[in-house]
Amino acid sequence: MTFKEKGLLIVLSGPSGVGKGTVCKALRQSGTNLQYSISVTTRAPREGEIDGIHYYFKSRDEFQHMIREKKLLEWAEYVGNYYGTPIDYVRQTLDEGKDVILEIEVQGFFQVKERFPEGIFIFLAPPSLQELKKRITGRGTETAELIQNRLTVAKSEIDLMKHYDYVVENDEVHAACERIESIVTAEHCKRERIIEKYKKLSEVDK
Amino acid sequence: MTFKEKGLLIVLSGPSGVGKGTVCKALRQSGTNLQYSISVTTRAPREGEIDGIHYYFKSRDEFQHMIREKKLLEWAEYVGNYYGTPIDYVRQTLDEGKDVILEIEVQGFFQVKERFPEGIFIFLAPPSLQELKKRITGRGTETAELIQNRLTVAKSEIDLMKHYDYVVENDEVHAACERIESIVTAEHCKRERIIEKYKKLSEVDK
Repeated sequence: MTFKEKGLLIVLSGPSGVGKGTVCKALRQSGTNLQYSISVTTRAPREGEIDGIHYYFKSRDEFQHMIREKKLLEWAEYVGNYYGTPIDYVRQTLDEGKDVILEIEVQGFFQVKERFPEGIFIFLAPPSLQELKKRITGRGTETAELIQNRLTVAKSEIDLMKHYDYVVENDEVHAACERIESIVTAEHCKRERIIEKYKKLSEVDK
Repeated sequence: MTFKEKGLLIVLSGPSGVGKGTVCKALRQSGTNLQYSISVTTRAPREGEIDGIHYYFKSRDEFQHMIREKKLLEWAEYVGNYYGTPIDYVRQTLDEGKDVILEIEVQGFFQVKERFPEGIFIFLAPPSLQELKKRITGRGTETAELIQNRLTVAKSEIDLMKHYDYVVENDEVHAACERIESIVTAEHCKRERIIEKYKKLSEVDK
């Protein structure tokens, strides 16, 4: 009998335009061990797109059936088409001991959090937030209105990020990737995970 | 007015002989930004040891005064000499925004945890634990007694590690250092720390 440590589900989200796709692509190219889930969609394949590689292409009926059967970790409708994450692929990959990274829009957060509370939720923050300090405490040449607008944006982003486990500032893609990889490594070192592993090992010969 | 993020206190401990000193030395050489605290001791300086660099050398009276004044984060007596960690240096370095790493024996854990609960506590585990799985689930050539002894050791180590935040297996010094550095990076990305920072920034112009 052997004991296999389960993989972690890493959920990367953040405001539209923050660079989630770019960061995910860079992570994929950096040779990290993270697995990417393949989305299901009802939109037509574009030239060169292959079913089961770029997307799982389904009819609207098939997609709605997946929704009803709770076969999707999250799903949304954009411009008349459905997009979603098949839960079976995720569970199977985690059971194989591999970590899975999932890139979602902020709207999908609560769906995934509800169905997979043990996921690691990372909020990718725009570099403007990082520069907030410089801007606010800058040379005092900004108008009060401009400063107020920036604070309002910052506060609405704090409201979004407060549900997440980690916040990674996307000041530079390479730096953001390194932080995400560090989070994955650190999560694997968490005491409760390691103890769980040892406890299971110690029970092997009972 | 500027806001400076406080540094983190990283406390590295683990069973005697696990290699805490070797890992700390390797971290120091890897050019990481971790600051090392200088210990206070009542033992006589050895050849080449300089006061304020290798140790702060104090008399027993001075040391006992520091204990009474709660100027030590932790302290212990070994072979007739006192050894301890001066709290002022640690607080001052953290206030400067620098992370401090502290290497302590497992006996010092509760002292530090009580005086500095916001510290990040890392248990350095011996490689034998890592090999437990292989050993237990091995070829079945081990005697029942030997397996039982190993399980007893493993269980007593689980008892020690259950108070810590992270467990890093010291299978290889370089790998252990990388995990510790990842933990520090990840801790800086924790949502509560980042939000705290932004909240303070947003209050600047009030």
